[in-house]
Amino acid sequence: MNKIPNQDAFKTPTVTTGPLPASTKEYTAPKAAPDLRVPRRVIALHPTANEPDVPVYDTSGPYSDPSVTIEVEKGLPRPRTAWVLERGGVEAYEGREVKPEDNGGAKGKHLAREFPIRNKPLRGITPSAPKNLGASPPQGGEVNPSTARNKVKAGEVAGASAQVGGGSFVSAEDTRAGERLGLVTQYEFAKAGIITKEMIYVAERENIGRQEMLEGAQGRVDAGEGFGAELPAFVTPEFVRSEIARGRAIIPSNINYAELEPQIIGRNFLVKINANIGNSAVTSGVEEEVDKMVWATRWGADNVMDLSTGRNIHNTREWIIRNSPVPIGTVPIYQALEKVNGVAEDLSWEVYRDTLIEQAEQGVDYFTIHAGVRLAYIHLTAERVTGIVSRGGSIMAKWCLSHHKESFLYTHFEEICDIMRTYDVSFSLGDGLRPGSVADANDRAQFAELETLGELTQIAWHKGCQVMIEGPGHVPMHKIKVNMEKQLRECGEAPFYTLGPLTTDIAPGYDHITSGIGAAMIGWFGTAMLCYVTPKEHLGLPDRDDVKVGVITYKLAAHAADLAKGHPAAQVRDDALSRARFEFRWEDQFNLSLDPETARDFHDQTLPKEAHKVAHFCSMCGPKFCSMKITQDVRDYADGLSDNEKAALGLDAKKGMAEMSDKFKELGGEIYLSEDGSVREDID
Amino acid sequence: MNKIPNQDAFKTPTVTTGPLPASTKEYTAPKAAPDLRVPRRVIALHPTANEPDVPVYDTSGPYSDPSVTIEVEKGLPRPRTAWVLERGGVEAYEGREVKPEDNGGAKGKHLAREFPIRNKPLRGITPSAPKNLGASPPQGGEVNPSTARNKVKAGEVAGASAQVGGGSFVSAEDTRAGERLGLVTQYEFAKAGIITKEMIYVAERENIGRQEMLEGAQGRVDAGEGFGAELPAFVTPEFVRSEIARGRAIIPSNINYAELEPQIIGRNFLVKINANIGNSAVTSGVEEEVDKMVWATRWGADNVMDLSTGRNIHNTREWIIRNSPVPIGTVPIYQALEKVNGVAEDLSWEVYRDTLIEQAEQGVDYFTIHAGVRLAYIHLTAERVTGIVSRGGSIMAKWCLSHHKESFLYTHFEEICDIMRTYDVSFSLGDGLRPGSVADANDRAQFAELETLGELTQIAWHKGCQVMIEGPGHVPMHKIKVNMEKQLRECGEAPFYTLGPLTTDIAPGYDHITSGIGAAMIGWFGTAMLCYVTPKEHLGLPDRDDVKVGVITYKLAAHAADLAKGHPAAQVRDDALSRARFEFRWEDQFNLSLDPETARDFHDQTLPKEAHKVAHFCSMCGPKFCSMKITQDVRDYADGLSDNEKAALGLDAKKGMAEMSDKFKELGGEIYLSEDGSVREDID
Repeated sequence: MNKIPNQDAFKTPTVTTGPLPASTKEYTAPKAAPDLRVPRRVIALHPTANEPDVPVYDTSGPYSDPSVTIEVEKGLPRPRTAWVLERGGVEAYEGREVKPEDNGGAKGKHLAREFPIRNKPLRGITPSAPKNLGASPPQGGEVNPSTARNKVKAGEVAGASAQVGGGSFVSAEDTRAGERLGLVTQYEFAKAGIITKEMIYVAERENIGRQEMLEGAQGRVDAGEGFGAELPAFVTPEFVRSEIARGRAIIPSNINYAELEPQIIGRNFLVKINANIGNSAVTSGVEEEVDKMVWATRWGADNVMDLSTGRNIHNTREWIIRNSPVPIGTVPIYQALEKVNGVAEDLSWEVYRDTLIEQAEQGVDYFTIHAGVRLAYIHLTAERVTGIVSRGGSIMAKWCLSHHKESFLYTHFEEICDIMRTYDVSFSLGDGLRPGSVADANDRAQFAELETLGELTQIAWHKGCQVMIEGPGHVPMHKIKVNMEKQLRECGEAPFYTLGPLTTDIAPGYDHITSGIGAAMIGWFGTAMLCYVTPKEHLGLPDRDDVKVGVITYKLAAHAADLAKGHPAAQVRDDALSRARFEFRWEDQFNLSLDPETARDFHDQTLPKEAHKVAHFCSMCGPKFCSMKITQDVRDYADGLSDNEKAALGLDAKKGMAEMSDKFKELGGEIYLSEDGSVREDID
Repeated sequence: MNKIPNQDAFKTPTVTTGPLPASTKEYTAPKAAPDLRVPRRVIALHPTANEPDVPVYDTSGPYSDPSVTIEVEKGLPRPRTAWVLERGGVEAYEGREVKPEDNGGAKGKHLAREFPIRNKPLRGITPSAPKNLGASPPQGGEVNPSTARNKVKAGEVAGASAQVGGGSFVSAEDTRAGERLGLVTQYEFAKAGIITKEMIYVAERENIGRQEMLEGAQGRVDAGEGFGAELPAFVTPEFVRSEIARGRAIIPSNINYAELEPQIIGRNFLVKINANIGNSAVTSGVEEEVDKMVWATRWGADNVMDLSTGRNIHNTREWIIRNSPVPIGTVPIYQALEKVNGVAEDLSWEVYRDTLIEQAEQGVDYFTIHAGVRLAYIHLTAERVTGIVSRGGSIMAKWCLSHHKESFLYTHFEEICDIMRTYDVSFSLGDGLRPGSVADANDRAQFAELETLGELTQIAWHKGCQVMIEGPGHVPMHKIKVNMEKQLRECGEAPFYTLGPLTTDIAPGYDHITSGIGAAMIGWFGTAMLCYVTPKEHLGLPDRDDVKVGVITYKLAAHAADLAKGHPAAQVRDDALSRARFEFRWEDQFNLSLDPETARDFHDQTLPKEAHKVAHFCSMCGPKFCSMKITQDVRDYADGLSDNEKAALGLDAKKGMAEMSDKFKELGGEIYLSEDGSVREDID
């Protein structure tokens, strides 16, 4: 435990707690590991709905659980330490000492208080990945279970992945596979055919709504268009394992991040979103960033990146991680640059290496590493409209040219892998040469880097690491799809993690929307995680409101992608909300929406009275013009017709309108419809 | 001139005037008709930009011209009366008397004041279209110029439409073609091979930026992916004529709408947007709606629909039209329903017909007519999640079922055509059965109606009318494209005019975004006009702020579509803004954006000082981390290298970085890159 150097300069962050409207936090226990508690939010509907309450994916952590007492000073509970320790292969150690430069040399009142508790970090015991892991080709290439000498019982095998060797569930009772086989990362366990608790957890979590779907409204399920995605009807732990083993998915989960509620990022799972937070040299403090993290996860951020620069980076990050329910990513070069006082030329492998270890010990789940910005590519950006717009990319470009040398991230890549493997930090291979304008989209610089990221992906897999790949940027709509296709091809289907892309440059102030368009499209095409863009993009640092707008925009984009891909349960919430809308269950409509507060507020601006919440009309049309009311009238009218009247309308006297639909389809097809679009004689 | 019945209940609307930041209104005179004044807005750049000012399309009318004195009581100038009269074929007449029911029986203080000036309406003299017009097949089918007996001089012929008979320019000097040939509508003139002033006007307007593009930065032009669109490098009046003659474009331009600044709607022109305004029985008054119209056009609305219901519809509309620079559309069934006190069953052809004439005399440019909601289709909606969500569609459905009869809009369609032709009101064939939820997208009801709209399109063309087709609604991404393809096929390429579509139902409060995604996509695929959706959709009536957010969102979606389609000059503004961004010309970045006020405001929230407007960094990253600054440093660094240093980097000592790009592409291609994505030996 460290001393508290400065009490005054730092107030305990105040964060938003409590359930969302009409929502209850529930925890389910997966069959394969009943000790796990997997959260979901259940939205209660009005009794008149006559349908089940709607369970939804929940990223908000314990903050939305009224039974949990939140103490930011203590951080969240740390259940994952037990999961990691029980499989073995790791050891606790003293860890690196925090140095003044870790906080940018901040002193006195400028130094943010350290987080009050310090846990000894864990690290993998074996120095490198088991030799038989090998680089994973896109199709299969599993470690032979007998080679891996795992004696564990057979796990559940998903139909969709029957071609993959049988997976095995590891627990403290039956195995210490990490210890026995020298495994540390989720990738290594997966390759060895072993299912971890993290895998069981995310499988349970991904299935929310699917059981209900399989049991009930499946008739409404649309196959969607997945562009090669392979979405199972039901996600099993074995399916998760096989996807991770193939490199197609990752569970960012540093062994030192014991607070984490794991989630999975991959093309065959729900599309995830990331929210960027972080202070800068110009503005914003620790309290604000912790609050933003909690706030972002409340509205649906699956991941958060702490992009802090300036002073107090170390302490800010510690407060964030110890209180976060979602994976935290960083860009270590930012802190490394602070350590050399902002002079890119002074960066060195040693400083960078030290920073990786510092952050890995804290529990960062994924590092953005711009190792694809190679010396020879920098000149490809010379004629660009917007040069290099990635901060990390431009820092490394400057270093390379200054020293007349290849990037140390590239030359030391294998050592980086070894460090990241030791803590199971996932790679987020950065796109330092991404386009910063539609003019620069898909140019040689961008694609040259992407090709190098593909090469590095193979190395990282070989080294036992989990990998995802970052993508653009600014891309006009007609150039988006080729980005996805090329990424899948070059990077062996490693998950793609894109920033937008923005589909036009002319709308600063609305770049959550210019990018939301591109994000929804590329998510549909196969991107596994969408990095949000807030309305402040290009203009300023997002505040709390901007974070919320960015998160909601990206949640809706990710959901639109899930719908279009045909995720089995995606439409459950749309249908429930649409029925509520049609039946004027206003409260249900608000509660089922991504942002119940805004929906209610907008409604109340014109019809504030409580009575209007049950009104069978709204302010847009008023009672006389309400199409939904009229439709109901039409239905009621038809139901109330006499037999003769029905006959005159061509309705079967014995049946109501709903039952007549099929007959009328047929009738309509014969009398009125022309499938080939030709002009019918009877209408002229 | 009518008396003013009630002075007190109505204040003269106050509207926003004055130029946008750094903008000057300019008027150009087309070569083919030098008396026309076609507006554009020119955005001035900072002298350090070293590039020309940027001209942009301008929908804001005289309100943004500081040299014009705005008097809402008098309305805008009426130049188009002369254009219409000089070609002849029309006559002024007394017109229909305004009746109390036109304003919903509003009396006393509840009756909105009439617009102070009343102009005698014009109407076409001939009772119907010339017989030789015929229905237009999708490819050509022009009236033989000799048949049309036009003796006018040959107009400009666009290369792209060389297959179309030579167009001819009609003016008061050389012809009175309207009179001689009995032509009224733009479609009739176009079919007769005659170019109207409206066509010349819109051609000039569409070309903004293209000349600059052809002369300068064409290297940056991207071909785009037009999905069959045929975008000319330069729009000629003859190209406009040929597109209208083929039914692929319309110029909504009622002969009684003399205030109009014409614009064209068609797949081979810039994508347009529409803003809906209108009071309802529950809220909002005349002043507010006039203000909203001016406000919407200020931010870029190409068209405005007045969807007023309740009382004072007639007077509200008159104030709007007399003060609007853009086409105004309506849904006449709304007012017809008011005339029968909201009882759908009491609607009749006579009431509807009377309403069409009333509105046509006022100058409404296009009518949404839900003539495709046929009796036999209503039952196809019975099993829908959200039934019929179109107000017009549900009204007609109720009427049909109540009377056991086919829709009177369908049975009287030819008479409707004759009325609309008499004033050149364009059809906007309504999609009364559009889906109101993703569950209902692309169902039989929707497509059955679309097929009928295709049949009606042929009739309307045969009758000499301009036609566009309305489209959905709520459609998940993977079901959008088939909508466009089917519409083009069924409706002979008549322009598509879609509402969104919304790509998910779960984000009320953000439906400008859920729909902006679908709008950008369907605009790219070929939709000619996008009907905006505001954040209040499904929740309440949009206020002024909502209108602005809706308009900006749809402008950016339309622009994203233009970029993706490869509109020749679309990228000019993106590139200018991106250069401004890269060079830290903050003021230019603000001024070039769709919403300069919001962009500036967002920037100033973190860096308010004037000095920061020239700062070479911003609040996101601060000075040390600014990638753009570093990129410039990199460029400067490379430029400052000695010959030996350049040689060490592989740079040609005689050339700067920019010139080296090609060499490095080659170099990179040989040493580092792998086109087929294979792992290179040299990296492991």
